[in-house]
Amino acid sequence: MRTEKDFIGSVDIPEDALYGIHSVRAKNNFPDDTPFLIEWYKSVGIVKQACYETYLKFKQAAQYKYRDKNLAFISDEILDKMIEAAIEVSQGKHFNHFIVPAIQGGAGTSINLNINEIIANVSLGKLGKKNGDYSTIDPFEHANIFQSTNDVIPTALKVTVIALFKDLDNNINEVLLALENIEGKTRNHLRQAYTQMQAAVPSSYDKLFSTYNNALSRDWWRVSKCFERIKEVNLGGGAIGTGISIPSYFIMEVVNQLQRLTGLPITRSENLSDTTANLDSFVEVHATLKAHAVNLEKMVSDLRLLSSDLFYHRELYIPKKQVGSSIMPGKVNPVIPEFVISAVHKIYANDQLISSLCAQGCLELNAYLPAIGNALIDSIKLLINCNKTIKENLLTDITFKKLNNEDTIFMNPSITTALSPYIGYHKASELAHLMNKKKCSIIEANRELELVDNNLLKDLLQPEQVLRLGYKLKDIGEDL
Amino acid sequence: MRTEKDFIGSVDIPEDALYGIHSVRAKNNFPDDTPFLIEWYKSVGIVKQACYETYLKFKQAAQYKYRDKNLAFISDEILDKMIEAAIEVSQGKHFNHFIVPAIQGGAGTSINLNINEIIANVSLGKLGKKNGDYSTIDPFEHANIFQSTNDVIPTALKVTVIALFKDLDNNINEVLLALENIEGKTRNHLRQAYTQMQAAVPSSYDKLFSTYNNALSRDWWRVSKCFERIKEVNLGGGAIGTGISIPSYFIMEVVNQLQRLTGLPITRSENLSDTTANLDSFVEVHATLKAHAVNLEKMVSDLRLLSSDLFYHRELYIPKKQVGSSIMPGKVNPVIPEFVISAVHKIYANDQLISSLCAQGCLELNAYLPAIGNALIDSIKLLINCNKTIKENLLTDITFKKLNNEDTIFMNPSITTALSPYIGYHKASELAHLMNKKKCSIIEANRELELVDNNLLKDLLQPEQVLRLGYKLKDIGEDL
Amino acid sequence: MRTEKDFIGSVDIPEDALYGIHSVRAKNNFPDDTPFLIEWYKSVGIVKQACYETYLKFKQAAQYKYRDKNLAFISDEILDKMIEAAIEVSQGKHFNHFIVPAIQGGAGTSINLNINEIIANVSLGKLGKKNGDYSTIDPFEHANIFQSTNDVIPTALKVTVIALFKDLDNNINEVLLALENIEGKTRNHLRQAYTQMQAAVPSSYDKLFSTYNNALSRDWWRVSKCFERIKEVNLGGGAIGTGISIPSYFIMEVVNQLQRLTGLPITRSENLSDTTANLDSFVEVHATLKAHAVNLEKMVSDLRLLSSDLFYHRELYIPKKQVGSSIMPGKVNPVIPEFVISAVHKIYANDQLISSLCAQGCLELNAYLPAIGNALIDSIKLLINCNKTIKENLLTDITFKKLNNEDTIFMNPSITTALSPYIGYHKASELAHLMNKKKCSIIEANRELELVDNNLLKDLLQPEQVLRLGYKLKDIGEDL
Amino acid sequence: MRTEKDFIGSVDIPEDALYGIHSVRAKNNFPDDTPFLIEWYKSVGIVKQACYETYLKFKQAAQYKYRDKNLAFISDEILDKMIEAAIEVSQGKHFNHFIVPAIQGGAGTSINLNINEIIANVSLGKLGKKNGDYSTIDPFEHANIFQSTNDVIPTALKVTVIALFKDLDNNINEVLLALENIEGKTRNHLRQAYTQMQAAVPSSYDKLFSTYNNALSRDWWRVSKCFERIKEVNLGGGAIGTGISIPSYFIMEVVNQLQRLTGLPITRSENLSDTTANLDSFVEVHATLKAHAVNLEKMVSDLRLLSSDLFYHRELYIPKKQVGSSIMPGKVNPVIPEFVISAVHKIYANDQLISSLCAQGCLELNAYLPAIGNALIDSIKLLINCNKTIKENLLTDITFKKLNNEDTIFMNPSITTALSPYIGYHKASELAHLMNKKKCSIIEANRELELVDNNLLKDLLQPEQVLRLGYKLKDIGEDL
Repeated sequence: MRTEKDFIGSVDIPEDALYGIHSVRAKNNFPDDTPFLIEWYKSVGIVKQACYETYLKFKQAAQYKYRDKNLAFISDEILDKMIEAAIEVSQGKHFNHFIVPAIQGGAGTSINLNINEIIANVSLGKLGKKNGDYSTIDPFEHANIFQSTNDVIPTALKVTVIALFKDLDNNINEVLLALENIEGKTRNHLRQAYTQMQAAVPSSYDKLFSTYNNALSRDWWRVSKCFERIKEVNLGGGAIGTGISIPSYFIMEVVNQLQRLTGLPITRSENLSDTTANLDSFVEVHATLKAHAVNLEKMVSDLRLLSSDLFYHRELYIPKKQVGSSIMPGKVNPVIPEFVISAVHKIYANDQLISSLCAQGCLELNAYLPAIGNALIDSIKLLINCNKTIKENLLTDITFKKLNNEDTIFMNPSITTALSPYIGYHKASELAHLMNKKKCSIIEANRELELVDNNLLKDLLQPEQVLRLGYKLKDIGEDL
Repeated sequence: MRTEKDFIGSVDIPEDALYGIHSVRAKNNFPDDTPFLIEWYKSVGIVKQACYETYLKFKQAAQYKYRDKNLAFISDEILDKMIEAAIEVSQGKHFNHFIVPAIQGGAGTSINLNINEIIANVSLGKLGKKNGDYSTIDPFEHANIFQSTNDVIPTALKVTVIALFKDLDNNINEVLLALENIEGKTRNHLRQAYTQMQAAVPSSYDKLFSTYNNALSRDWWRVSKCFERIKEVNLGGGAIGTGISIPSYFIMEVVNQLQRLTGLPITRSENLSDTTANLDSFVEVHATLKAHAVNLEKMVSDLRLLSSDLFYHRELYIPKKQVGSSIMPGKVNPVIPEFVISAVHKIYANDQLISSLCAQGCLELNAYLPAIGNALIDSIKLLINCNKTIKENLLTDITFKKLNNEDTIFMNPSITTALSPYIGYHKASELAHLMNKKKCSIIEANRELELVDNNLLKDLLQPEQVLRLGYKLKDIGEDL
Repeated sequence: MRTEKDFIGSVDIPEDALYGIHSVRAKNNFPDDTPFLIEWYKSVGIVKQACYETYLKFKQAAQYKYRDKNLAFISDEILDKMIEAAIEVSQGKHFNHFIVPAIQGGAGTSINLNINEIIANVSLGKLGKKNGDYSTIDPFEHANIFQSTNDVIPTALKVTVIALFKDLDNNINEVLLALENIEGKTRNHLRQAYTQMQAAVPSSYDKLFSTYNNALSRDWWRVSKCFERIKEVNLGGGAIGTGISIPSYFIMEVVNQLQRLTGLPITRSENLSDTTANLDSFVEVHATLKAHAVNLEKMVSDLRLLSSDLFYHRELYIPKKQVGSSIMPGKVNPVIPEFVISAVHKIYANDQLISSLCAQGCLELNAYLPAIGNALIDSIKLLINCNKTIKENLLTDITFKKLNNEDTIFMNPSITTALSPYIGYHKASELAHLMNKKKCSIIEANRELELVDNNLLKDLLQPEQVLRLGYKLKDIGEDL
Repeated sequence: MRTEKDFIGSVDIPEDALYGIHSVRAKNNFPDDTPFLIEWYKSVGIVKQACYETYLKFKQAAQYKYRDKNLAFISDEILDKMIEAAIEVSQGKHFNHFIVPAIQGGAGTSINLNINEIIANVSLGKLGKKNGDYSTIDPFEHANIFQSTNDVIPTALKVTVIALFKDLDNNINEVLLALENIEGKTRNHLRQAYTQMQAAVPSSYDKLFSTYNNALSRDWWRVSKCFERIKEVNLGGGAIGTGISIPSYFIMEVVNQLQRLTGLPITRSENLSDTTANLDSFVEVHATLKAHAVNLEKMVSDLRLLSSDLFYHRELYIPKKQVGSSIMPGKVNPVIPEFVISAVHKIYANDQLISSLCAQGCLELNAYLPAIGNALIDSIKLLINCNKTIKENLLTDITFKKLNNEDTIFMNPSITTALSPYIGYHKASELAHLMNKKKCSIIEANRELELVDNNLLKDLLQPEQVLRLGYKLKDIGEDL
């Protein structure tokens, strides 16, 4: 055990713990079990790395320019070790020493301090010093040099989110490919369309899947543009974006360095106070994600319905992925759609949380960044996972068992609507009438009424004909 | 009284009522008091106008091309009257005959039918015929020609929303001008900044207002781009976007005509089935509005706090707009911020409603368009009104009563942070220490400690100096 | 035109307007179109009536006790007229002079002042005086005597809500009766049950309707208890519940008087400051309503599904209530379920608004009572209307067309589960296996396998047998 | 590695894994990182224990009654081991072998199967058998005997929740004690009250804390009643509450056994189908929790405001719990209120999730129980933790530094309202007028105006006098 002190008193800490007293305080103050998301932790590492490297440059420039003066700086040795430690954090190492939960007070101070303590202690270790020897490397004066919670933590959040967006876009893209494949396989596969759960006019399976394809293409585009909304970071702005007591050299350089390290298109905000105080961009970005979630829910709900035992003319079969019941043998349930629906409802809930907390900013800062960031990352990860499982476990092995049109779509009088431009409204109505009365197909009805030549009828009932967008004047029968 | 019939039975309707049996059915089925928004009603009128005018062109083209055939069409006389009637609807006339409430079943069918009935009866009146003489002009066969609820009503919604966006943008712009004006008036007006409601380092009023300015500039930009998300309409697509039994001429022309009539940048969707089935764009658009709402809540909450009796060094005064209490004489309350906060929370609630219902689309259609559209228009109108009253009743007459810096910001030891790059950390700390101990200003503390030349201190405490972004190396004292 | 003045300036008001300058100020400050709900307006009338009548008693008691002193009071004549005016307000009269919208700043001050102005002017009219002659009857000193917005307006809200609860309970009761009726009609009507939209073991229609019946019975009980959560009012508490400058006689009596007038079980709060500051009871009450909304959504969603064209073995038919399409002849849609779902999603949205604003109380008061009250009353009315239309337009004329069991439930191998306790697991499995293989009914399968005596099978497939809760040991076959 | 098989194929599983193929399937199908909550896992253990013990009784009864028959049952040895294993699960053991995430498809099937596999394998181990030897003990036929996911998992959820309620109630109680303590310490500590953030009439600190006390007392009562809403369980009902193929002896006994084991007041539902299909009670229960959350947010927001640097006459000091800034030395932030606000907003979000998913039940079942249960348990735990940290880290060491009334509350003209019943409205107004003009205290103003005897004034300004509820007639001065 070692003992660490703060203004309240002292705390005993296990000798090998990389966290310190401030982490312990936070853990006690915030008795929450929600695990902090490692993606954010890693990004703080890379942001700190950028800060230390920029500090090093600043030091070198200053020492060169004022080489006659004896300026005091953090030693290169300490900086090197802190850079190494920051890199390790950015790789997810030492995460078991990060003891602060996701739900916490304090705008991210405890995240920052826990990581500062880890970096200080890891660096001390690299120097052969003991954990807690803060007179050599201090979590505040060294690990936090020229930084503030209020610029480091939101910047790291944006780095996390922009990186996850790429992942999300790739996964949406995979789903798009799977959808295109199904469209290809179901071209001109006629089906009864339904509006408001009641039979409407005819459509086809490929047309239905084209609506999903279009919706998710919009989502892909949306997500691919999202980074623009949050690419401006306030790193270098200090506590309230005024950059107080930070060298302007550092402010001008640190974001460039972070950009180089991450390879992400982040830039320094033009108004650091604005970027520190206002979190509207997270609202906008999450809402864009919500539009994607809505499309996913619509699509999987449709697929669940079309593939369910209760669906009238079932032609679509989703893959069976696991045993569906502990009591009913052979039962298989649509667990992937259900997983997705559960997940997107969590995203809707996250959306409410994010906007309600983003609106609670007060003057220079919004104290709720930790809960906001947690919900935002959670949502993106859920969406990545939804797309992943939709692709792998739902769409890839979807199958169709074509029923005979005469038993399905040709039985519904609405099919006559498709003919009316060609055979005239009156003949079409006669057919529909008889179909209703006799519960027979359009083929049978025509066989009885002999209104249209059988071959013509066959032609007119070809999917291409039924589904073509609008009729041509030349096709209009004379009795229109 | 006249009598109208449908498949259920007959209903007596007042002789002069422009609505008909289908409106009455809806009114009875949907016992809701929420008033339907007139903006949407008007847009249905203009969409119908575009349809009738396109029909006329189609008729002329068809009659010319097939002049040897005796094609049957709606007469020019009836079309002329229906166009006149549709224009009147687009001007808000006959709205008292629109009896369907905002919350309703049926994807907009009742909206469409009520307006069809109004148009039929208004047209009949223009022909000198009696209301209800549907053998002459029929709400379905004439007023609804080549249309479906499922293309007309969502198209009209988009027309409404795009038009309102312009209004909203103008109103945000007015607020931006007011904010710039305040920024100009408060340039270098130093103030204590607060993070998490505790004193932080110094800032200024113009800097604070610049954060609002930046946030609302983003909002302006957001709203100005929103139309792009919803400019694609499915007019011409019929019931499910396949354009079944509609001439392709009509499908290709009708959106152009609507564009000409409205002057709005709408286009025909490339996939009419997608546009009919998926409502994700409304989710995205409303969420963008929510980001604006969040910025408004943040801003007015700040202004309420800074101008409240409970604020420590109150320098900002919002205009007194009305008596604040029926019992406490002289009390005036921050009613404009409260109005805005009430309104934006309604917008947050609308956001939940819109996304939850947009996700409930089923196969070819989403049955909840009426509730979705109502909430969307409601939100935009609320935002327009919020900006309007913020501009007129909150920002325009905001005033500042500058307190002496020595009594306010120079009393807080955090001011020494601003000096540390210039006089060194140690001297700054000494000053802070004494200020804390003696509860005195930095001027007094320096007078006692004589650490800095008084003139230099004066210079360093100039707002430009305190607030400049980052310090320059050359300013660094030797004992750094 | 008459001219009225306040501390800001003067406003011209139409001669016959019963509202005054404070209403006009509010209308200008709060540019919202959401109509204020008349139910709340009426209740303010009855609360004011109780206040004036209590004042009268207080005056009589004081004059008797201190008859030697010349105490100054409002004259009986003015009190009589104000009581008359308040009664008129409680009947909904003069509502066209109530010009304040539902969304407003100021905790209800503008509601109170608009009604005070109406009461003052109506009373003046009764005295033969002109509108605006406030030196005779003043909206503050007379109409508002011993009242504060902060006690009158929330008290009126509670009166409104408790009265509406009775209406809601009656309407739920009507639905319960309709459900019981359907249960009676479908006793032992076997049906395939579904879990997760996949076929599960057998059930019956009456059993399904019994689940709705139970759920709505809970709702009835919930609503019937809701009044207890909000029956404590703070009338008499003045601005912050301390009753400052109000006679204790008035405080002790006024709630009793209100109780007598309304016949509702309201009581005076034990801690008037608590009741003024905290609105948690509205959260609780609305959430209870939300549980009811959830049950309604579940039930109507089921009914829509079971009665839809896409449902496999459709036996349930909901009444056709209106034409379903402007383009597809004969189409009828489940508009009542859709109406209900739209309405309950508005209730969910209201729930979010209510809890987020109720949490925003600050120290002695919550400024958002108007928006909260509007949402609460809106929700209750929506629920009343939902129940009403469910009863009248959905449940009353629901019909069932029984299909042959052999074509439906006896075709699903899950029916064998019901037999296994009686014929043993192995025989049941054999039957299921053959049914699956041959796509035949259990009857046919048994005909082939001759595993069970046909009469016994018939007995075991009786609904009473299939649905009885648990099997008895004596029924167990020997090969278990 | 061992190999397990299902209808899809086979999976290699680590030799020592207690989970099996069905858990692995679920893990792959549901790629989510949200950890499943151990509290629910434990409760499934105890429910399974009750099932096995009831099975044992049933077996004994059956064997006795039908001792002449050779009935086949699970052996006592296996039952004993499964009971032991279930007890271990109920103690949280083997939780590292529970690999299913919180967000999942399938109504809880994967929870049930994972635990069935754990119990089977643990039992096998106790028999000296290898993991995966399911021919000896099968996860379905043995571990799941007479159970269904659809009765076991929701029953376990209710057991969890009812147990947590007790914990929550105890923690609310602790907060109530702390509040009472503060009330005691601040009796008659006058303070300026504020409505809408503007100065209102006087109040006191103990009165303010009494409002929190009352609010949380309601919460205590609410929570203490919550169990009644969910005490009815459907254990024994099987897949859809019909108890199909389960002995009625078991159905009648198993809940009693569970009640004995848990000591909780659970009972068997009267309508097992209803309890299986409808989840409205969770909506109701969570909403009740939301009312508590709203009270917590209100209270901690007040405390944060009253103790903040920006509060005008700061007299209340919350304990300093941790360093508040990585950059501003000495800054301490209100982290406990911020933690609580973050947590309650998560609860609001959970509330939306719970009600939206509870409404999505379909026919016999609601597929979303896992997400619903996760959110519900999460909320209760958050509330327990909020109360815990409020008690320990916020209320216990709250301190007050009384300022001189003459510098604070006596400076505000509203204090004169308190005098008006005693010295008359006119004298009170004169005093207020002078106070406003001279910015002086009421004492000074009276010294100048000599309106009241100084001793009388002193008496009237005593807290008891200022705060007493309503004035008595005998106190009225003659010039009223």
